[in-house]
Amino acid sequence: MTGRTITMLGTGLIGDFYTMTLHGQRSRDRVRVVYSRSEERGRAFRERWAIPESTTDMKAAIEHPDTDVVVVGLPNFLHEEAIELVAAAGKPVLCTKPLGRTAEEARRILDTVEKAGIFGGYLEDLCYTPKTLKALAAVRGGAVGDVTWVRSRETHPGPHSAWFWDGRLTGGGAIIDLGCHCIEIIRNFVGKGNRPLEVMCHTDTLVHPIADEDNAIGLIRFESGAIGQFEVSWTFRGGMDLRDEIAGTHGTIWMDHFLRTGFEMFTAGGASGYVAEKAETEKGWLFPVGDEVAELGYIDMFTDMFRAIEEGRAPQETLYDGYVVNAIMDAAYRSAKSRQWEPVELFEWRGGETPRMATDPELHEGLVVIKRELLPDGRQKLILKDPASGDFLDRVVAGS
Amino acid sequence: MTGRTITMLGTGLIGDFYTMTLHGQRSRDRVRVVYSRSEERGRAFRERWAIPESTTDMKAAIEHPDTDVVVVGLPNFLHEEAIELVAAAGKPVLCTKPLGRTAEEARRILDTVEKAGIFGGYLEDLCYTPKTLKALAAVRGGAVGDVTWVRSRETHPGPHSAWFWDGRLTGGGAIIDLGCHCIEIIRNFVGKGNRPLEVMCHTDTLVHPIADEDNAIGLIRFESGAIGQFEVSWTFRGGMDLRDEIAGTHGTIWMDHFLRTGFEMFTAGGASGYVAEKAETEKGWLFPVGDEVAELGYIDMFTDMFRAIEEGRAPQETLYDGYVVNAIMDAAYRSAKSRQWEPVELFEWRGGETPRMATDPELHEGLVVIKRELLPDGRQKLILKDPASGDFLDRVVAGS
Amino acid sequence: MTGRTITMLGTGLIGDFYTMTLHGQRSRDRVRVVYSRSEERGRAFRERWAIPESTTDMKAAIEHPDTDVVVVGLPNFLHEEAIELVAAAGKPVLCTKPLGRTAEEARRILDTVEKAGIFGGYLEDLCYTPKTLKALAAVRGGAVGDVTWVRSRETHPGPHSAWFWDGRLTGGGAIIDLGCHCIEIIRNFVGKGNRPLEVMCHTDTLVHPIADEDNAIGLIRFESGAIGQFEVSWTFRGGMDLRDEIAGTHGTIWMDHFLRTGFEMFTAGGASGYVAEKAETEKGWLFPVGDEVAELGYIDMFTDMFRAIEEGRAPQETLYDGYVVNAIMDAAYRSAKSRQWEPVELFEWRGGETPRMATDPELHEGLVVIKRELLPDGRQKLILKDPASGDFLDRVVAGS
Amino acid sequence: MTGRTITMLGTGLIGDFYTMTLHGQRSRDRVRVVYSRSEERGRAFRERWAIPESTTDMKAAIEHPDTDVVVVGLPNFLHEEAIELVAAAGKPVLCTKPLGRTAEEARRILDTVEKAGIFGGYLEDLCYTPKTLKALAAVRGGAVGDVTWVRSRETHPGPHSAWFWDGRLTGGGAIIDLGCHCIEIIRNFVGKGNRPLEVMCHTDTLVHPIADEDNAIGLIRFESGAIGQFEVSWTFRGGMDLRDEIAGTHGTIWMDHFLRTGFEMFTAGGASGYVAEKAETEKGWLFPVGDEVAELGYIDMFTDMFRAIEEGRAPQETLYDGYVVNAIMDAAYRSAKSRQWEPVELFEWRGGETPRMATDPELHEGLVVIKRELLPDGRQKLILKDPASGDFLDRVVAGS
Repeated sequence: MTGRTITMLGTGLIGDFYTMTLHGQRSRDRVRVVYSRSEERGRAFRERWAIPESTTDMKAAIEHPDTDVVVVGLPNFLHEEAIELVAAAGKPVLCTKPLGRTAEEARRILDTVEKAGIFGGYLEDLCYTPKTLKALAAVRGGAVGDVTWVRSRETHPGPHSAWFWDGRLTGGGAIIDLGCHCIEIIRNFVGKGNRPLEVMCHTDTLVHPIADEDNAIGLIRFESGAIGQFEVSWTFRGGMDLRDEIAGTHGTIWMDHFLRTGFEMFTAGGASGYVAEKAETEKGWLFPVGDEVAELGYIDMFTDMFRAIEEGRAPQETLYDGYVVNAIMDAAYRSAKSRQWEPVELFEWRGGETPRMATDPELHEGLVVIKRELLPDGRQKLILKDPASGDFLDRVVAGS
Repeated sequence: MTGRTITMLGTGLIGDFYTMTLHGQRSRDRVRVVYSRSEERGRAFRERWAIPESTTDMKAAIEHPDTDVVVVGLPNFLHEEAIELVAAAGKPVLCTKPLGRTAEEARRILDTVEKAGIFGGYLEDLCYTPKTLKALAAVRGGAVGDVTWVRSRETHPGPHSAWFWDGRLTGGGAIIDLGCHCIEIIRNFVGKGNRPLEVMCHTDTLVHPIADEDNAIGLIRFESGAIGQFEVSWTFRGGMDLRDEIAGTHGTIWMDHFLRTGFEMFTAGGASGYVAEKAETEKGWLFPVGDEVAELGYIDMFTDMFRAIEEGRAPQETLYDGYVVNAIMDAAYRSAKSRQWEPVELFEWRGGETPRMATDPELHEGLVVIKRELLPDGRQKLILKDPASGDFLDRVVAGS
Repeated sequence: MTGRTITMLGTGLIGDFYTMTLHGQRSRDRVRVVYSRSEERGRAFRERWAIPESTTDMKAAIEHPDTDVVVVGLPNFLHEEAIELVAAAGKPVLCTKPLGRTAEEARRILDTVEKAGIFGGYLEDLCYTPKTLKALAAVRGGAVGDVTWVRSRETHPGPHSAWFWDGRLTGGGAIIDLGCHCIEIIRNFVGKGNRPLEVMCHTDTLVHPIADEDNAIGLIRFESGAIGQFEVSWTFRGGMDLRDEIAGTHGTIWMDHFLRTGFEMFTAGGASGYVAEKAETEKGWLFPVGDEVAELGYIDMFTDMFRAIEEGRAPQETLYDGYVVNAIMDAAYRSAKSRQWEPVELFEWRGGETPRMATDPELHEGLVVIKRELLPDGRQKLILKDPASGDFLDRVVAGS
Repeated sequence: MTGRTITMLGTGLIGDFYTMTLHGQRSRDRVRVVYSRSEERGRAFRERWAIPESTTDMKAAIEHPDTDVVVVGLPNFLHEEAIELVAAAGKPVLCTKPLGRTAEEARRILDTVEKAGIFGGYLEDLCYTPKTLKALAAVRGGAVGDVTWVRSRETHPGPHSAWFWDGRLTGGGAIIDLGCHCIEIIRNFVGKGNRPLEVMCHTDTLVHPIADEDNAIGLIRFESGAIGQFEVSWTFRGGMDLRDEIAGTHGTIWMDHFLRTGFEMFTAGGASGYVAEKAETEKGWLFPVGDEVAELGYIDMFTDMFRAIEEGRAPQETLYDGYVVNAIMDAAYRSAKSRQWEPVELFEWRGGETPRMATDPELHEGLVVIKRELLPDGRQKLILKDPASGDFLDRVVAGS
């Protein structure tokens, strides 16, 4: 029953969520040392989570003799530098999203890790929410038939830290911050082996006085014909809206991860305290979630990562997945400029081929059946197409 | 307390909904004569709704001496012919959606009506649902600030009559059938005076063996910068999904018109009967609406139309609106082919100009305020941008 | 197409709702004269609703030569006096809920009306909400099997007018104000012919400095064995909570009439205006309904009443129903004092007899089948009872 | 980072849920030996969960030299026997709900454990759901003011194993099976120190051919004046309905733990597999939860229990709590027979005293303020009571 002993890089909100998860419930894993660029923030974090050591020396943190995994929870522009050091140290590395600021940076990171032969995991928590995992199992089991469309939406009023707003440090705006989640959720539902072919994206900066996009909508076309639709915003009002919708030839899935999860509270005020991430108010109708780190996928994510390390297998979310997400975001940014569909450019596709979704038309007396409808009297109405003339007709037949 | 006496053209599902509305509750209005191409369907309709006369002579129905309004509930390809006859007869005409199969056809219809000087109303029921009317009032009252984005979604498993599936008779597939609703809902929320500039649209035929699209997603860019997003499908599973979402700089509105309206029923079976339009099952969890013709807007729509006729004013939904919707759909179809943004081409724009939405940045000691966050200890954290360097920084200040 | 011409007695909130309904949409009915005890309120009401006359003379209003229906929208303690005058005038009378302050008073009113031979209608709007009407049709059609339990809940932060708080004028507190709705909703779902036998009720005054109950919970046992459960409160926070739940042997119905109807709005403030009856806030997450007079049942209620008058039949809600409701409330108040089940005392039961609900036990090889469960491998597990020993056992059998 | 090594008694559904939790995610705890009365079920369980040993010797399992905690997941009638053996062995014992079949049995169990001086924990999972824990923290923080009413509802179509249906083995029907959950949830929300004074309960056997109740509703009156309301049923249709509602003087909480948690799936069929505990169908609209053992509270429950053992403190749910729950259920069963309120008889109350909830009436010019209402014009309407005459009046004053 050995646990992991972890080097944590970074002390921001994501570091808190990660450590709350790693130290939570009956976990056997522990953060052993935390690195921060600021000695003060490192010390505060160390005390907050009862971590033995903090340091401002990233290399020392990574090479700490007692740790066997490194978690990168740093701002985007520091991922590459950190992962190079981890690769040199030969330890498994788990990196927060997005992997890089661009596909090119993500590819270099991937190369570094693969050449070093170390384990790499992509910390895409929203692909691990309990609802998502169960929905993915249902989809793989055929519950919705062929997936035709996935909508993934992540919007809130904007990030909590200054560096998030600086595209030079992050690689962009709301797409790079939030779109990476949506894109990988979409990929899971259409199937990771389903190649993303091209992207159409619209971006705009409508509210905040910044250079990067605070709103974006994108469409991703996959090889099967499925469409992924991501909607991201830093200007949403009312909390944090995390919803996914999946349409298939035989079914539908709707998931609300955060604002409507069966927990509703009205308070006339008087009490105070933390409601939920990005909640806007402390009075009136509030919609908390039960256990945030569970609902947001952090628990199942680290379970998969650590089991994968221990079992010598790949995790559900790999650094190659992170690279593909970056490549799709690059195409989205290109499309927002060119105002056309832009191809997803991948140095290598590891997913195989996916045939175009198709259904064999059913025939009725030589005519193509478009639809069957049950009439109140028990008979069926067929809507039929004459393949020769292209004409459509209704025909009522005996019941099923 | 005079009522309207109506010529009803058409005996399909829409004719039933219209007549159920016109004859419903304590209405003072009545259908006097109904026209159908089929004598049998005309007679059945007449008996179903206790209408004095039915006929297969469209001209006679329109010119009937006792009627003072004509309602066009015919398949799309018959709108122009019918409206020309009404114009000649000099009666007010109310036409179901879409107005034409193309903008060109819609423009000719509009010309005909305007030259004849008759009253014209566009029967776009979903712009009149009670929720929509109340939400529009809230938006106009400033409840959500500037509208940044409107999503309107209408999807179901496909229409009930053969002619709907024949693009030659309708002008297209799911866009022409369902998108026309979404587009006009969007226009109402962004403001009808807000010019639609261009459209990006993706269409595909994924499930049904037909020539036209059974799925489409489109983006409409308006002069203010607002984006309208329509999602239509003839392959949705689970009933009829009618939802609208509005995002604004100061608020959010979510409306579900049909599948989740506070009415949930589980039945193990045994009973039977009509559940709701496009419901797929008669067992398990079902989600009926209370009063369909009310919830779908038919009641408020005819109230507005008849009051407008009586008061000599324009209705909320005019034939010019119908024309604009056709023009946006034309652009959507062009875009689906060109795979680029396509301009919305209007022979005339009657809506004036709308400035780009804008917020004056707030300054704090010469720095631009990006965001204010309340900390648990009552202090505020400001995220600031240095306009000179473009750098972002956090600064904690005393509480408000 | 003749309409009703109405004498409206009372100018409070309920008078407004009634008149908004009567004058709404394409109604052919009109209020001709309004009576108020206050000349000022009468004039304001008259102007608000474009009514030709107002008066402070109740008798004159009732006997007005141009009206053919009288609507009683007065405080409870004035119902009897008003209805005596209407009976004398020989006009149809529609009386708001509750009919009387006690069953005795209600019985006298009923006598008066029946002796005069006039039409009497009980204006119980919440039995006419569109959802309720559709649910009642489903229940009658067998969708939920035998009804075992009905929960009806009506709670809000307390009434808007002073007289409501004075039990001498009303007959009680939250039960007389709100419980009357719940009780009649319950009666509709268990079947109006299903005799209410006895009541257990708990009341308390927990928040407001008044002599009557501001909270109550009651159970009603019906002849079939079904239980009705009403929950009323004048201390609920968060708006007006109107929910009904029906359990049956084969199904379940859940209805939310007011707070969660598929319309959700977040506003950061800035706008203002009426949100909904009893809404507590103007900011944050708000939950309006579409068309209040429709959702609360007023439209269908007057349609039924006026059609009943015109067709010479009884309405869905009669004054006898109002009397039964009063009798059940009397039993509830007695029970709250005696702390025991109290019989429902009726001077006359007009509903016939209802057998105890029962199911014939299914047998399997001489054992009683308690439950069948489908196992994942397709086999069935039976839970069986040996009628001789009273022992229970599991047995797995081949699939269906 | 030492974990617990566990003796698991019982291999039913609850044993599966417990072991799934104990072995789940990154847990450091493990089941070492499992006891079953049936060798076959023991072996299957051992293999299912990779447990080193199974045995049909309960004493040997309890005294196993390598285990340091015993979990009792046996049918109710075996709890006392098992706990006596654990007490003799001197190990910490965690017992599933209900503690006993009667308060007398529960008291003997409590005595045994307290005399032996061992740690005792009451495995009441539904008091540990993440939503419940967060809601309890909000209530304790004052978010809803004084709690006036708690409704806890647990209903489903009936248990999965034969012994549950035999009141001789369990102590009763739906109350003993499900009511124990509701009662302890209620106690948590009104405050565990708030003494339960008396109970009114109605039971009936409406559907299943059994001797015990398949439906029950109960009211519990607490010392503060708060009312707890439990609703239990073995005849609910549509899945498992687990909802709690809390009303307070300043707020409201609604929780849905199972059927409406933001996860909705429609499937036309074709796929199959486990949907959720007590789900009734595999087609149509389904409502799974994300992670059942998390949502039902098992994870947080064992975390609290094991931390309590390790920290030498009492857990949130103690065996004394289990005893109080049994005492309340005894009173409920007595009340169902006597048809009166019955006192809750406790051999000892360990909770102290709770004053009656009270609010000081606000005065306005010598009159008692009943309610303040904001008028659309910004003024306030006061509803006032004259304490001398008992009369109520409205008065409009300037805005706040």
